[in-house]
Amino acid sequence: MKRQITRKEFLAKTTKTVVAVSAGAVAASVLPASGGQWGQAGVINTASAAWPWPYSALDREDARKRGHKGYYDGGCCYGAFIAVLAPLAERFGAPYTNVPAQMMYYGAGGGAGWGSLCGALNGAAAAISLFLDRSRATSVVSELFGWYTTAPFPSDISNDYGTQRVFLVNRCDKLLKQTAAASTLCHASVSTWSTASGFKTESSERSERCARLTGDCAAHAVELLNDVSAAKFRATFVTPPSVAACQGCHGSAIQNVRPSVKEDCQRCHKPNWDHRF
Amino acid sequence: MKRQITRKEFLAKTTKTVVAVSAGAVAASVLPASGGQWGQAGVINTASAAWPWPYSALDREDARKRGHKGYYDGGCCYGAFIAVLAPLAERFGAPYTNVPAQMMYYGAGGGAGWGSLCGALNGAAAAISLFLDRSRATSVVSELFGWYTTAPFPSDISNDYGTQRVFLVNRCDKLLKQTAAASTLCHASVSTWSTASGFKTESSERSERCARLTGDCAAHAVELLNDVSAAKFRATFVTPPSVAACQGCHGSAIQNVRPSVKEDCQRCHKPNWDHRF
Repeated sequence: MKRQITRKEFLAKTTKTVVAVSAGAVAASVLPASGGQWGQAGVINTASAAWPWPYSALDREDARKRGHKGYYDGGCCYGAFIAVLAPLAERFGAPYTNVPAQMMYYGAGGGAGWGSLCGALNGAAAAISLFLDRSRATSVVSELFGWYTTAPFPSDISNDYGTQRVFLVNRCDKLLKQTAAASTLCHASVSTWSTASGFKTESSERSERCARLTGDCAAHAVELLNDVSAAKFRATFVTPPSVAACQGCHGSAIQNVRPSVKEDCQRCHKPNWDHRF
Repeated sequence: MKRQITRKEFLAKTTKTVVAVSAGAVAASVLPASGGQWGQAGVINTASAAWPWPYSALDREDARKRGHKGYYDGGCCYGAFIAVLAPLAERFGAPYTNVPAQMMYYGAGGGAGWGSLCGALNGAAAAISLFLDRSRATSVVSELFGWYTTAPFPSDISNDYGTQRVFLVNRCDKLLKQTAAASTLCHASVSTWSTASGFKTESSERSERCARLTGDCAAHAVELLNDVSAAKFRATFVTPPSVAACQGCHGSAIQNVRPSVKEDCQRCHKPNWDHRF
């Protein structure tokens, strides 16, 4: 890839941009929001750039293709993570080369295959968190989670790439059925799709579905990061009405559910669940 | 902290140890299990040591105290992650200083507060994944997840540290009720504890419960890593009988649930759930 500007120029330029879009929060944008004894620069975080790392606008569709390929290379969590990190690593080297992306292998299949948090979400969220301070990362990751629960996967774009053999690897060129997970969980996401599509969870079609989903998550993470960089980020996810209804007692009166929980309660708590539980 | 051996000596010594405990898997122990175009050393992973990074046996109780403090510094995910990474970073510098631990802030509260995968589990799993190849990390992280679902939190040790003011920070010295989550999810873990203990989810007691749990997860991660280093690791988690029963159809016949899913199905799928869903 052609090196258009030097890394030094990039870091200088990007740091200015980050500061420019962080009116009133200059310190928070270039220093950890908190950290304590072991989070201070000089102990942890002595890489060549202070966290949060500079971010330069990336190509959303490039991220989609990289995420799709990354799924086949190392699973959903690795795929989404490296799709965001690799373009910067290839172009600028350190600090983007300092994190071994293989550390995200563990997130595949909802964490060692357990079906918990979707690995593509986990990897995309980890990548986002390299570039944003704690407060902004929380907002952007929350938006990513919300988008995930309602988006039909694979996206139209990913289905087009698959059927037209645009992806960097081609293991399946079928048009795949789209389902929304209504959950952040791998198990709910995969089982809903497998049930609706008729393809078994261990089928190559299901793998391809998750590869396209990984690309979609990486692409959306890049879109959100680009929006933050351009001072255009706006959270659009609206908490489902069922959550507000349940939180009316469980969050406010009984207070045994954290107010920050935003997943549709009735995805697991069916109307015929024992309400005393 | 007294520097007992040089980093160079440590890396040389530890690499030998890693190789020694990896009979038949020498290449896998010092090189990525896979990676593809963007995962190769030279692009990503050009830090000063090739992934997986060398691991040296750590003090389990030190990790428990660091995890507890880390929770208050940056949340559960950050706390569990830095509790494992910081001792090596403090002692040996790079490559352990290359990953900004603040990137794990996002995992707090099950990911931006959403209540999905417990952040302490997520952070501990990420830390484990720095030191083990993909296959071994999957085994160890799966064991960590299994342990989490059945362990009573806070552990006896953490409760003792809390009541006796042994922890590095003291925000609550109460003896806290112990509950098992029967789930990897933050929401299930927190709400079960809050319901059983009577302490609200936003109370300082619940925060302290999660701080102690974070320490417990970091300590167990260290224990598992120490076991791997000493060639003593054995997976002990047994998949719940309900999972085997459900997978009898859903995994083997219907095949709409991944065989790797190991969480107790009936934690969400109550007996009175619509079985057609």
